[in-house]
Order: sequence, then structure tokens, then C-alpha cells
Amino acid sequence: MNGTSISMNISMDIETELKTELVRAELAKTGADACLVSANVNIYYCTGRIFTGYLYIPAEGAPVAMLKAGNMDGMTVVALRKPEQVPEIISAAGYPQPENILIELGETSWLEAERLRTALKPAVCGDATAFFRKLRSRKTPAEIAMFRIASERHAAAYREIPDIFRHGMTDLDFQYAMEYVMRKHGSLGIFRVYGNNMEIFAGSILAGINAEAVSPYDFAMGGAGAHPSLPIGANGTKLVAGMSLMVDMGGCFTPYISDITRTFSIGRLSDAAYAAHAVSIEMHDCFRREVKPGTRCADIYERCRAAAERYGLGEWFMGTPRHQAKFVGHGTGLQINELPILSPRSGDVVEENMVIAFEPKFVVPGTGAVGVENTYLVNRDGVENLSTLDENIILL
Amino acid sequence: MNGTSISMNISMDIETELKTELVRAELAKTGADACLVSANVNIYYCTGRIFTGYLYIPAEGAPVAMLKAGNMDGMTVVALRKPEQVPEIISAAGYPQPENILIELGETSWLEAERLRTALKPAVCGDATAFFRKLRSRKTPAEIAMFRIASERHAAAYREIPDIFRHGMTDLDFQYAMEYVMRKHGSLGIFRVYGNNMEIFAGSILAGINAEAVSPYDFAMGGAGAHPSLPIGANGTKLVAGMSLMVDMGGCFTPYISDITRTFSIGRLSDAAYAAHAVSIEMHDCFRREVKPGTRCADIYERCRAAAERYGLGEWFMGTPRHQAKFVGHGTGLQINELPILSPRSGDVVEENMVIAFEPKFVVPGTGAVGVENTYLVNRDGVENLSTLDENIILL
Repeated sequence: MNGTSISMNISMDIETELKTELVRAELAKTGADACLVSANVNIYYCTGRIFTGYLYIPAEGAPVAMLKAGNMDGMTVVALRKPEQVPEIISAAGYPQPENILIELGETSWLEAERLRTALKPAVCGDATAFFRKLRSRKTPAEIAMFRIASERHAAAYREIPDIFRHGMTDLDFQYAMEYVMRKHGSLGIFRVYGNNMEIFAGSILAGINAEAVSPYDFAMGGAGAHPSLPIGANGTKLVAGMSLMVDMGGCFTPYISDITRTFSIGRLSDAAYAAHAVSIEMHDCFRREVKPGTRCADIYERCRAAAERYGLGEWFMGTPRHQAKFVGHGTGLQINELPILSPRSGDVVEENMVIAFEPKFVVPGTGAVGVENTYLVNRDGVENLSTLDENIILL
Repeated sequence: MNGTSISMNISMDIETELKTELVRAELAKTGADACLVSANVNIYYCTGRIFTGYLYIPAEGAPVAMLKAGNMDGMTVVALRKPEQVPEIISAAGYPQPENILIELGETSWLEAERLRTALKPAVCGDATAFFRKLRSRKTPAEIAMFRIASERHAAAYREIPDIFRHGMTDLDFQYAMEYVMRKHGSLGIFRVYGNNMEIFAGSILAGINAEAVSPYDFAMGGAGAHPSLPIGANGTKLVAGMSLMVDMGGCFTPYISDITRTFSIGRLSDAAYAAHAVSIEMHDCFRREVKPGTRCADIYERCRAAAERYGLGEWFMGTPRHQAKFVGHGTGLQINELPILSPRSGDVVEENMVIAFEPKFVVPGTGAVGVENTYLVNRDGVENLSTLDENIILL
């Protein structure tokens, strides 16, 4: 593709049309004339494919895809070399220059966003990052169908865990074997996380007291990791009797990520571990009974925290006294940490068609991490558990 | 860690001291008073560990680590909640407010960078992203030692390739097995790439005509990928006689990434494929003979392109007539696409202690991708090949 503008109008598929309508409906609420997206997850959300460049969605009229690289077979496509061309491309497509535009200010680098702002000179420039995070938190039927596929494959892979375990192996040996099983079940591999400083590879395996190691990343659990350059999860711990083994691998079998954690035991664990795990299951029972559209996410967190304290587990709830994650669940989707967030200060409210990973966990001193994580679909009057797998601690 | 400032002064290790000196020496050349870094790769470069927050390195005086999360056991550490605290932390550490500061404007989101700029109000704000990319292009002895380890493990994993191959498998089956072998040889998994829109998982396997599929990402080769959400590399092609199989997995055995490509054949390939592969090897011979500190990177690209045309391979050099990558090599390090870039418009010049992946490749119509990629260390008067593995096409 060269710098010359080429233009094609081809019909979009049904899901892309639906997404475009959803974006337009939300744009109307903000008063913006248009949004301009370039983050891969937002490009994929809007178009069902990945390209490098910008997608311009006006409040009225057909979207314009400006491509540096990639293929598009169902949309108006214009070749792009640099951000400064965006205004002329918008004009050439027959649209006025936007006065009030949303740009992904939370994801685009300062340098690139400034180039866009300088070129477009909008009177008002809002944040498309927050806009899309909110919009993406309510899933479409096609997205929900992908979660069902991902959840089934995720569960099938986890059912192989007892066959993977070998006495004498390390948590890393286990993780490598687990990754291989996930891939053979169709994992796409890539595990997308929101936030520049968030990093993880494939998922987290936590054995024994490695669960007490604090990680700099904002995930629910820690672990020292295999190297100081990636301080999260498995660290080479030899799996021996008395340890819990928490398996929390990213269920990346479709672009929509299933999130499931199950806890295993090497031999018999301490009584405290079984007791704490039972509290996690009780929290899930409560979640399944009571959460529905309208539930305040901060309330879910507070009820879990209060229950943990009631059981004398407050210090080991979502971590250790040195560091506790300040959330008990999160939306999932194209990225593992979507909205809503179940945290004490969250202003989010549960809505129909949200997909929420709920993960009340405890670190039991000397034993390791215990607890259950399921991915739930919010329906009209409650939640549906997409992660239907035995929730008890499974003896290896 | 809470919002209260805690401060500790502990001695840094030798590599961290060296890096701090290197940053200061370069800062002096730019005239900046200080730099403020938060990208994980720059944090790791400067400190040998990962934390979430900011590292403030003044042109004179000890660095200050401001941590949202993570552990530091060898540096002044101050607890951080939000970017607006940075000025008061700088003052509390006994430093004046910087008038001329470098911030990672090419990596930090517009929203975060604006918060920092508003809080710090520097008279001049330069780009720490470009600064660190340039600085990181010349490796220290400790970094070079890590490349040697990574290269050895990478080569050892590739030597197992003939044992991995099974007739009837797909490129994805092969990739999964290859990933497992890489992990068992100690791969850390995570494969860091510079640029928001660059995505890859573990590496690329290209079989047969899938090499002709254009990818939106700015990697050397394409491939349709297993799903539209990650359009790069293996796509489920069944491996049958007459196909080339190009293996280009990230050598992430240390934080410093070794980059090696080798080409395999399923049965006998077309004569054109062997001829093109021989041209790639000839380009490597030329690179090994002639590249040294002072060589212009654009000249390396131009000589390769001209040689490809001389052999009648111009259209299939670094891609297909539909899309050709506009580079023939790149620096590697904490990220796979570091400086220098061997491209036609590159202003980069080869310098001592750079580590450069050189990858002249061809897509042979109907057969697939061929060529060799080695990682070279630039020494005082030439280059050393760190990727010592048979370069010929290996029959599977």
C-alpha cells in the first residue's frame, strides 16, 4: 500500500454493524462528533480484525479505516502514512472536521496523541479509552458466544491437570506442561492486559509459600516469578507434600478471555487451608444467589472483606499482611482486567451482559494460596456461572 | 505500602551503578537536569528489577525510586500513590525541581504524561523514550553475558527441531511443541516488543504459502495467524512435502532476547528456494566480513536489496510483491525491536557493543519463506556471530 488514497465501500458484517451502532449510541450521549481509535483491542472490538492505523467513527455516517498496514475486506479503507493525514482523510471521506472528538488518551502515547491533537485542533478532546472500557464491559451476543467456547475449552484443559502432575516436578515444570495442554486445547496464546506496566505470560501457577511473595503487578495474587525481570507467579518451587497449587491460567481460547482458578493439593493440606477454601466457595454461593443488575461492585468487595474478617481471615484475604490486592473480581473480555472492578472505591454497578471474574482468594501461611475463581455472565435477574468445574480442592 | 513517605538508602549493585553513570553521562549531553522513567524495560535497565511507579535520575545525586508496588532492596525508595506527588518527593529527597526533564513521551499515555507535566511544570520536557532507546542500543558487559546465555539456550532448543517434527502435524502443532521445548530450555516466556500496536506470542512459525499472507504488524515476515485477533504466523497449515518451514521463535531465555531464524524443509524444496536461501547466507557472509563500527545501517539495507535484485529476487525480498518489510535487521535487547534499524531511511550507524539481529529473508512463491537470521555482537573491529548453528536448510 502506498501513500495514495484508495477508497472502497463494502458491506460490513453483522457484528461490525452492531458494534458501530453501539459506539454511535454512546457517542450521542457524550455529545462527541466522532471517535478515533487505534488500540488493537478497540480496533478489534469495532471491526473484528486487527490493523495498524486509525478507525474514525463519526456520530453519523460510515466509519473510515485508515491503514498503515493490514487488510480490510468490509469497510471504507484509506492508506495512511502519518497522523497528520487524518484531517484530510476525514475531509476526503465527506465529513466535516470534528469539533468534539474522543481519542484514546489513556492508551496512546503522549507524542502520538499530541500529533493528532495538533493536526485535528478539536475544540474538545475527550478520552476514548474510558469510553471504550465502559462500552466493552457489556458484551454482545456474539461476544458471549465466544466466552462460552473459551470457558468450555478452559475447563477441558483444567480437567487434564491431575494427569500433568508428577511427583518431584517444580512449579515451572508444571506451568510449562500446563501451557502446552492449553495450547493443544486451542489457546491462541496471547494474553492481553490493560495498562502499560502490567505483564504476564500465559498465566500464573502458585505453589506453597511462593504465594506470600509480593509482586509489583496489580494482579490478585503475587509470586516471585522465575526471574527479576518478570516478578510474578511460579519461581521454581519444588512441589512437595503439604503445599497448595493454585492454577490461574489465562483462558485465551478466543479473543474473549475466560478466567478460572482452581486449587490443588500435593498430599494433605493444613486444616486452615481447607477452611479458607470453604469460605471462598461460600462467597461464590453468595455471589450466585445475590448478584444481579444493579448490585454495587464496591458492596460485593465489602461483603467479602467483612466475611473474611468474620472468619478470622482478614489478614490473608487477597494476599498477605504485607500486601493485599484491593479487589475481589474484575470484568474480563479482550483484556483480562476490564470493567467493572470489584474494589472498595469502585463506582461501578453490575449490568446485564457484563462478564465478571470473581476470585475471592486467601494465602494460608505456610501452605499457599487457596480459593476459586469463576467467570460469570450477568443476565437479566442474576448471574450464570460459565466456569462449571468442581470447586473443591483436588488432591494430586 | 501506604501513602506515607518512607526512605531508605542502601548501596546499589555494580550493574545498577554502571547504568546510573551511563544515564547521567548521556543526560549531560542533552542538557537535561533529570529523567523520570516508568516503562518496565527502562525501569529494569536502570535497576535490574521491575516495579510500578517512577524512577527519578537526577544529573547529579542518587536516583529516587517512587513505588506504587514492588520491592526494592538497594535504592532510595519512596511510596507513591499518584503522579501529582512527584514534585514533593523530589523536594523531600533534597533536589530542586527540574527545569529541563526527560519523560517517556513515546511510551507514557497522554493522560499520565499530562499529569506529570502539569505537576512538574518543566520549562523544557524532552523525550526519554528516544533517549533510552538510543542508550540501550549499546550493551554493557553484563548485558552481553546475558545474550551469550540466551544464544546458547536458543541454539540448544533449535537443535531439537528435527525430533519435534512429525509427518501429518500442522504448523500450530509444531509451534506448540516448539514453545514447550523453549520453555523446558528455560525460556522466561515473556516476549517484549516496542510499540503499542505490536503483538506476538512466543514467536513465529511459517509454513508454505502462509508466508505470502500479509500481516498488519511491523515484523519481518507475515502469516495469517490462527485467528483474526492475532494475524501473524502459523495458521493451521498441514505440513506436507515441498514446503519450507521457517522457525523464528523469540529467544527469551534471559531478559535480553536472542533472535535466531532457521529454515527447514518438508521433503525436497524447489530449486528456487535453495538458491534464495544461498543468497541469504551470502548476505550473512558479507555482513560478517564487512560490518563494523561506523557502518551506516541504511547502507547494509541497500546492499542487501541491490544484491536481491541482482539475483532476480527483488520482488520476494523481505516479503511478497504485495508487502515487503522495509528493513533487513534490527537491534535486540529487552525488546525484540531495539535500535539500530537496518532500513533504507535509517540514520543509525553501527557502534561497538550493539547487538543486531540480521535477517535477510525471501518468500519463494509456492514454497514459503527461506533465509537465516543471526544475532551479532558488534565488537571493536567487526562482528561476532552469537547464533552458531548450521545455516543450511535442514531436511525434516
